[in-house]
Amino acid sequence: MHGTSLAEANRLSAHAAAAAIRSGQLSSLDLTMACLARIEARDGSIGAWSHLATDSAIARARRADERQRAGAELGPLHGLPIGIKDVFDTCDMPSEYGSPSLAGRRPEVDADAVAVLRRAGAIIMGKTVTSEFGMYARTSCRNPHDVGRSPGVSSAGSAAAIADAMVPLALGTQHTASTLMPASFCGVFGFKPSFGFTSMRGSNILVPRLANVGFLARGVDDLALFASAFAGEFADAVPALPPQRLGYVHGPAWKRVAADADMTFGGLLKRLPVAVDELALPAAFDRAVDVTLGLLSAHLAHRFGSQPDMVRQSYCAALRDGIAAGLALDAADYLALEAEADRLAAAARDLFRSCDAFITLTTPGEACLIADGPGSGEMTIPWSLAGLPTLSLPLLKGANGLPIGVQLVGAPGDDARLLSIASWLTAAAVRFQSAESPTPFRQASSEEVWSDTIAPM
Amino acid sequence: MHGTSLAEANRLSAHAAAAAIRSGQLSSLDLTMACLARIEARDGSIGAWSHLATDSAIARARRADERQRAGAELGPLHGLPIGIKDVFDTCDMPSEYGSPSLAGRRPEVDADAVAVLRRAGAIIMGKTVTSEFGMYARTSCRNPHDVGRSPGVSSAGSAAAIADAMVPLALGTQHTASTLMPASFCGVFGFKPSFGFTSMRGSNILVPRLANVGFLARGVDDLALFASAFAGEFADAVPALPPQRLGYVHGPAWKRVAADADMTFGGLLKRLPVAVDELALPAAFDRAVDVTLGLLSAHLAHRFGSQPDMVRQSYCAALRDGIAAGLALDAADYLALEAEADRLAAAARDLFRSCDAFITLTTPGEACLIADGPGSGEMTIPWSLAGLPTLSLPLLKGANGLPIGVQLVGAPGDDARLLSIASWLTAAAVRFQSAESPTPFRQASSEEVWSDTIAPM
Repeated sequence: MHGTSLAEANRLSAHAAAAAIRSGQLSSLDLTMACLARIEARDGSIGAWSHLATDSAIARARRADERQRAGAELGPLHGLPIGIKDVFDTCDMPSEYGSPSLAGRRPEVDADAVAVLRRAGAIIMGKTVTSEFGMYARTSCRNPHDVGRSPGVSSAGSAAAIADAMVPLALGTQHTASTLMPASFCGVFGFKPSFGFTSMRGSNILVPRLANVGFLARGVDDLALFASAFAGEFADAVPALPPQRLGYVHGPAWKRVAADADMTFGGLLKRLPVAVDELALPAAFDRAVDVTLGLLSAHLAHRFGSQPDMVRQSYCAALRDGIAAGLALDAADYLALEAEADRLAAAARDLFRSCDAFITLTTPGEACLIADGPGSGEMTIPWSLAGLPTLSLPLLKGANGLPIGVQLVGAPGDDARLLSIASWLTAAAVRFQSAESPTPFRQASSEEVWSDTIAPM
Repeated sequence: MHGTSLAEANRLSAHAAAAAIRSGQLSSLDLTMACLARIEARDGSIGAWSHLATDSAIARARRADERQRAGAELGPLHGLPIGIKDVFDTCDMPSEYGSPSLAGRRPEVDADAVAVLRRAGAIIMGKTVTSEFGMYARTSCRNPHDVGRSPGVSSAGSAAAIADAMVPLALGTQHTASTLMPASFCGVFGFKPSFGFTSMRGSNILVPRLANVGFLARGVDDLALFASAFAGEFADAVPALPPQRLGYVHGPAWKRVAADADMTFGGLLKRLPVAVDELALPAAFDRAVDVTLGLLSAHLAHRFGSQPDMVRQSYCAALRDGIAAGLALDAADYLALEAEADRLAAAARDLFRSCDAFITLTTPGEACLIADGPGSGEMTIPWSLAGLPTLSLPLLKGANGLPIGVQLVGAPGDDARLLSIASWLTAAAVRFQSAESPTPFRQASSEEVWSDTIAPM
């Protein structure tokens, strides 16, 4: 238990909690009760949950403990409480995709990803808050580091629940920035695997070629454990391997990066014990945001354009604007965007001729003030459009003492190695923190992660 | 050599010719010269070739024979002359896609499919005539059974060259009907494999989700040999296996089937030694042609819509009309068509719950008179849209004594079994012909196939 008392079991990493449950030091029920207590104490201020399944979570945790006592075979996520972003269908909970237009919707079938997580032994605690249909729109959820600031969108609730130690694992999605932006703002670890990693059936798919699951947790090992429920290649212990060749990119949106973020990122580059070269990005990448928003708006027009006026008027402004932009596109425009996206994806793959992975910032800076909007996805859009695996690691701190994520990007299909590089990068950043004080880098171990900006119990 | 003299080697099936070459009874050079002599004698009337590579074919055939004498490893198509529809790039011949706008175009790289055929040992004789960019438009090629009739489009030259024994194998493509319609009109065997069978890079792709290679030959065994150059699962000897459950469909376009074609198809159904039940087609299939033409026109608008006026005015009417229709579509229309195509493909897969394969006609009847247009693709469009493997078998004869194809359709990926069923069906039809006289069925053996409507040497 590494010094964490039973009452604080909710703070454990998924990895440590899984080990404690298997060894009999901790029951799934105790862990679930600790998480529920944390949610009870804190969610009034944070608002990470749109639906809490208290009774069924307790019943399922009890059953998990019984199965373990009976010697049953246990899945990789056996007994671990998990939050599910409410853009995934669940057969036993509301599934409203954050939209008043779907209030009370209760599908009969789990999304494929939810079914995988149940089979892996996870205890589904409830549904986490999302912006409407995953658009860039404010949610009622607040950033646990500073409730005056955005937790990011659209996997706002999942990231906030992880940051606030309400659960060790939470499922998100990402079309453009929806897992990594909240991970950066909330100071947690986020992972969007390679395109096609797992079935998206039963989730809110805005654009099929952009839709991905996203994983949120408090350490790289936890992300690997999470991914191992879906694919065999992810061992639950991730070796910390340095890359052969690490690159960095600033990217087309760097001009909007805040001075403090620029400086702390530069400091990280200088201190890394490997050479990090800047990669030249073809000019085509300047169009990544336009191409992505064009594809998105066309699909919005297709999906929502023929809804009755009353329904459409109920949508958030971002959704209404997207539909209107899409209705103005013609078929040839759309196919030109598809062709441009294909070329960008090919150009992105070429970047890995000169490096194994590259780093950049996940967001232009710290979480923005709620009044200033939900946050920007520009820094992650090009890599999401290209289908690349990406991670956000909470290794930097901004001028207000709030986290800023380092984005690590790998070649398509190279997900397992990317996690190993992430483990190395995280350990390297923690070493700087030990060696220097004050330091720009936030503590981030894979066993028990905490931050002085998160409220204690 | 099965009674065929050296001078008639061009009449051999690919299968018999390959065996004769391997056993030393026939050289690739002799076969190539026989094919060139046939082309020389006949192509003035038929017009199957847009480019004939006489010198390089002779040189390559000589080299093939030398390699065989030297004991080199031989590919599955070793020494066999082949025609390539001029919608595939070839590094050493003009590649004009049937369009005056690309006159003189000579790409530097082979299309992937052409590279595969060269590696398999085939001797590329030249490029065969196609309608402009593979559209439904008349070509200068004529039907060898009756030069007043259409050879079908768009793989016109490839089908006519096979029917006229100019080559034993010819490569085509199919988005909607372009391999099977010419096969039906020209009385040859045509095979469009499952979607995704092989790379289409370096070919004229009109709509990525519809683009397929097509194989034309004079027997089922020859089609299997042809396919074996691309994929290991195709043995060069195809067992004749009856289907467990064979179905038939009339399909939404049956109302335009000619009376003679309807009658001879009905006669085939009655005489088959297995029960053949009619499959109920969901009403959604009535939209297959509209969906296909909609997708096609959108892609035409994307690809050709911004060409200079002078170039666009040079296009055939079918292409100009398609572009204009596509320019009138908006992005949401296009995505609705894509969604409809996905649903149709799913519905088509469901048909195979109640049968292993089904049959229908390939065309509404015999080849139409040239004055009446190139022919109709309605009978093949639904299965091409659904990505199913399909064959056209020259088993029926119409009122004018001209061939009509039987279309055999299988489940996605079930290509090898479909060829076995085709072999069984062909043998069964030939047995009727032996038992009855006069008979509606055309002779079709896999060793040496001929027709009394094709001019002798």
